[in-house]
Amino acid sequence: MLIVDSVQHAKAGHAGMALGMAEVAYFLYRHAMRYNSTSPKWFNRDRFVLSAGHACLLQLRLKTQSKVVERKLKMENLAKIEDLKCLCKLGSRTPGYPENVVTQGIEVTTGPLGQGVVNAVGLALAEANLGARYNKPDVAVVDHRTTDLALSEDISARFEALGWNTITIDNSQGNLDAFKNALISAHCETRKPTFIRFPIIPGAVVHCLLKTIIGKLSKKEGSSKAHHGTFDDDDVKQMKQKVKWNDREPFHVIPMVYREMQAQIDLGGRLEQEWNSKLNYYQNKYPEEAAEFKLLVADGMIPGWESSFPKWSMSDPVDSTGGYSGKCLNALAKVLPGLIGGSADLASSNQAYLHNLGDFKQPDSPWGQNIRYGVREHAMAGISNGLALHGGGLIPFAATFLVFSDYMKNSVRLSALSHAGVLYILTHDSVGIGEDGPTHQPIEHLSGLRAIPHLLLFRPADGKETAGAYKVAANVEGALADVVGKGGYIVSDNSEKELPEIILIGTGSELCLCEASANVLRKEGTRVRVVSLVCRRLFDRQPRDYKEFVLPSSVSKRVSVEAGLPLGWKEYVGDEGIATGIDDFGYSGPYSEVFNKYGFTEENVTKTTKSLLTK
Amino acid sequence: MLIVDSVQHAKAGHAGMALGMAEVAYFLYRHAMRYNSTSPKWFNRDRFVLSAGHACLLQLRLKTQSKVVERKLKMENLAKIEDLKCLCKLGSRTPGYPENVVTQGIEVTTGPLGQGVVNAVGLALAEANLGARYNKPDVAVVDHRTTDLALSEDISARFEALGWNTITIDNSQGNLDAFKNALISAHCETRKPTFIRFPIIPGAVVHCLLKTIIGKLSKKEGSSKAHHGTFDDDDVKQMKQKVKWNDREPFHVIPMVYREMQAQIDLGGRLEQEWNSKLNYYQNKYPEEAAEFKLLVADGMIPGWESSFPKWSMSDPVDSTGGYSGKCLNALAKVLPGLIGGSADLASSNQAYLHNLGDFKQPDSPWGQNIRYGVREHAMAGISNGLALHGGGLIPFAATFLVFSDYMKNSVRLSALSHAGVLYILTHDSVGIGEDGPTHQPIEHLSGLRAIPHLLLFRPADGKETAGAYKVAANVEGALADVVGKGGYIVSDNSEKELPEIILIGTGSELCLCEASANVLRKEGTRVRVVSLVCRRLFDRQPRDYKEFVLPSSVSKRVSVEAGLPLGWKEYVGDEGIATGIDDFGYSGPYSEVFNKYGFTEENVTKTTKSLLTK
Repeated sequence: MLIVDSVQHAKAGHAGMALGMAEVAYFLYRHAMRYNSTSPKWFNRDRFVLSAGHACLLQLRLKTQSKVVERKLKMENLAKIEDLKCLCKLGSRTPGYPENVVTQGIEVTTGPLGQGVVNAVGLALAEANLGARYNKPDVAVVDHRTTDLALSEDISARFEALGWNTITIDNSQGNLDAFKNALISAHCETRKPTFIRFPIIPGAVVHCLLKTIIGKLSKKEGSSKAHHGTFDDDDVKQMKQKVKWNDREPFHVIPMVYREMQAQIDLGGRLEQEWNSKLNYYQNKYPEEAAEFKLLVADGMIPGWESSFPKWSMSDPVDSTGGYSGKCLNALAKVLPGLIGGSADLASSNQAYLHNLGDFKQPDSPWGQNIRYGVREHAMAGISNGLALHGGGLIPFAATFLVFSDYMKNSVRLSALSHAGVLYILTHDSVGIGEDGPTHQPIEHLSGLRAIPHLLLFRPADGKETAGAYKVAANVEGALADVVGKGGYIVSDNSEKELPEIILIGTGSELCLCEASANVLRKEGTRVRVVSLVCRRLFDRQPRDYKEFVLPSSVSKRVSVEAGLPLGWKEYVGDEGIATGIDDFGYSGPYSEVFNKYGFTEENVTKTTKSLLTK
Repeated sequence: MLIVDSVQHAKAGHAGMALGMAEVAYFLYRHAMRYNSTSPKWFNRDRFVLSAGHACLLQLRLKTQSKVVERKLKMENLAKIEDLKCLCKLGSRTPGYPENVVTQGIEVTTGPLGQGVVNAVGLALAEANLGARYNKPDVAVVDHRTTDLALSEDISARFEALGWNTITIDNSQGNLDAFKNALISAHCETRKPTFIRFPIIPGAVVHCLLKTIIGKLSKKEGSSKAHHGTFDDDDVKQMKQKVKWNDREPFHVIPMVYREMQAQIDLGGRLEQEWNSKLNYYQNKYPEEAAEFKLLVADGMIPGWESSFPKWSMSDPVDSTGGYSGKCLNALAKVLPGLIGGSADLASSNQAYLHNLGDFKQPDSPWGQNIRYGVREHAMAGISNGLALHGGGLIPFAATFLVFSDYMKNSVRLSALSHAGVLYILTHDSVGIGEDGPTHQPIEHLSGLRAIPHLLLFRPADGKETAGAYKVAANVEGALADVVGKGGYIVSDNSEKELPEIILIGTGSELCLCEASANVLRKEGTRVRVVSLVCRRLFDRQPRDYKEFVLPSSVSKRVSVEAGLPLGWKEYVGDEGIATGIDDFGYSGPYSEVFNKYGFTEENVTKTTKSLLTK
């Protein structure tokens, strides 16, 4: 009835599935899952993912019930009965869809359908990897489980085809034995994930537990109308009569529930205590592994990790930024045991592979830190979010060509939204890709990714900037002091004590063009500054003084050069400036010819700059 | 050997799969498909989609062979032997991946993996729909077929789970009988699409036709190294020896091939002629249906269609733009028989449903013009591209919430890239969605879609603008004269003969805020102009005079108001102006509170405007 009371009070929210799945979810939280209510971040907890995020209310209710007595504990960020009264209210801990950054006990953010299963795979993958790396024959410090709850259609065959173990529960007897047996069977199947199917019966009139009925108890029971929205007063009254709730106040919780929840809390405390004892034993017997494991779980960085990066000097042969990236990634892997990830079938092209750290493969090598995702960008990003949010200190990287970031856009947005620290390595970042043509040449993608709130997009120009980008990205705690961490900096300037006459702003490969063009102009006596804006958002966050230092407002002649859509560059070049870019889909052709066609040549940058100087 | 010669000449391209699948593709083009080489757009042709776009060379070669004698016909845009020598060269008709807008005979653009099957489904759906609507028991004017060619892994079970008929060919006998039989069997199975699986045998040493071998004949045969890139001279020599090619010049075509291709051309001509006869018979017997059918195939609009739109006046009750959209869509359906489409399970929310025109459903109602896509945005957009590019005059619409456009981003980009006229109806377009919170509140999505080259994004503010947007979008031939077609216009201005002191620029729902704020300021004696920039890209394309008329450069005080990321608005408000927007993920809460939190209120717009006026 808390579900009903909540939507009535909020005049919003989705009650349908929450009512239909209430018993199943209660069973999971009370009789199947191992977790500690008073310690929601306990590392070895079982992890629960709600794919069908609109049934969030179900999850909030469960969390709330299991936390009921914690009101006295004054724990922050845990949903409480009071929070249910704030369902869908601004600033509440009970938003309309589950958000892990808002409500404790919510593992991942699954609102936009299509995330839950991949997130759950990521969580489970994290467990399998850490278990393989740190468990010992005599002691398993990593042995939790992940269970994803989704509305299920008749999709067992699809999961079977993907190599899952599937169990269909078709039990109208009104008890949960079949579900319990299915869970036991799932736990025994250690080689494959298990998919348990609950058939949905839209028109069912019998009450049963496992054939779930949307909007159960309501007049709208069994109808899509029960999906969301409030109930009419008469319906609420009848529902409460059906369960003999009658005249109780809204949001009433009966004593038995409090008792059950207290028992659950006691159980959770014991479970965590047992695990702590196990961890002590582990630490005494395997001190080296324990040190690394505890470092990981504490999400910590090894002191001095920044110094691990390769250094490049002007005399080194020039590499692609993709090449620099591969070297940085491998240097990072040596000092960050949590690094794990893969490429969507393009590792040989984007060099996102951890040498000598093996491929993650079950049952042969679950300890491997390279994941072979295949051409599955969406799954890769969703799994990466699960890896990041598992809480085991894993730092996922996910690599593909920039143009294919399209296929994982929503999952990338959810990395930013749910604070999942994922390193996306997106190579082949402009029409410079050449022969493969417009379907492979990113144009609007830099703009699109920069547009995602809070996401930091770096477009490094050389090895130094690439290493700087990795330092910022891997350092979850905050920015670093070097120039890349400031998002933008002066690369070169011949103005000495005067201000420059013109500023050239570049990113990535086009920074070289700016430098080349600047050198031509300088020889002719022009005062030219070249600025790298390697990360626009970080630059925007700098103090006004620093921004003014790099881009003095009195220098209004400015040219930006980036081989992508010029969207947003007007912010940096101003009304008088020129933003050089491409508002077209590119062409198949040799790299140099395509660049030439769009005017990304030293000659053209120089010409553009001169046209502005003489204006 | 043309494949080999082409990559050697281009020093680029993907020969591996093209070599492995050469016989299969030749068989399809010479012995299975019905098409007319000299008339590549013939309506009733069988349509071929190459999912694995990197094997484009295979398709270009086939097209080329079948067009060999057409060099004399001087047809434009058809790939010829000469074009193979320009493989991957800038401006050639033979780009690295298939692009329908570059090469005649290429049906869709499948470069980024993940498009081919959905495109093919769209093409097949178009045929099924048109066949159901126009075929008669005694004459079928629509009876072509769609065959999608993809690299196939062991995914038969997945297709079976999705309800396909699957046939696996495992025939090492070196002839094509099994394939031929599979095609016959596929044609007989009229209730389901058929998936024919060719197992790939990476290490196979025997030569066989149906177990395909990547890079067949090359030293790299059976290895992923054969995927792309050139062959060494020795390898080319050995390959040519194997097929007794020896000393022939590169790009040599033997006379037998010319004869075969001439036979194919003759056959194609006869096929089209037979169909024309059938169409004549149809026209005589069913003149009304024939008139509509021919109008569709000619891609034409019924004269006067624009007048079909509902008219709204100030006295009508205010509706949401989603509501106006539903009314426009249904008005359009009455005059455009080609309108077909659906919503990704959100039709009741986004009102994208054609009343009284039925649901497309096989075998019951393939004539229906509403497609029930389910929660499958990517498939919806890919299918829409197939529907649009089928050539049968269907005008697809695809609807969902704006935030879920993320899940179909690459397919939307391909609509623009491949000139597939798809109407995307994206409702629930800001944090104004309220209670569902940040996972459902689009922020960067307007920016992201505007960033796609050539795509026109309209954000209408009322019924009039909604109708205007539909008029522009449905009118494939060009823009209309009304203000929405210009992308931006003056909504109101109290400046009379003077210039305004300040310009407020709004889109969508926020245009009302601009008007409300302007009215407050006008009462205080300020000269205020309100401008609607309903489509930024169309406005950008207007003559300088018109743009100057709407946004005079001497009025530097400007405020833009849009409840999304402010990216790109600096272009319109200039250095001195203020772009009001949101660079955050939104909140769950009632609509008005969320808008209030981000400052989208009349009071705040007025305050911002005043701060600028007094600056």
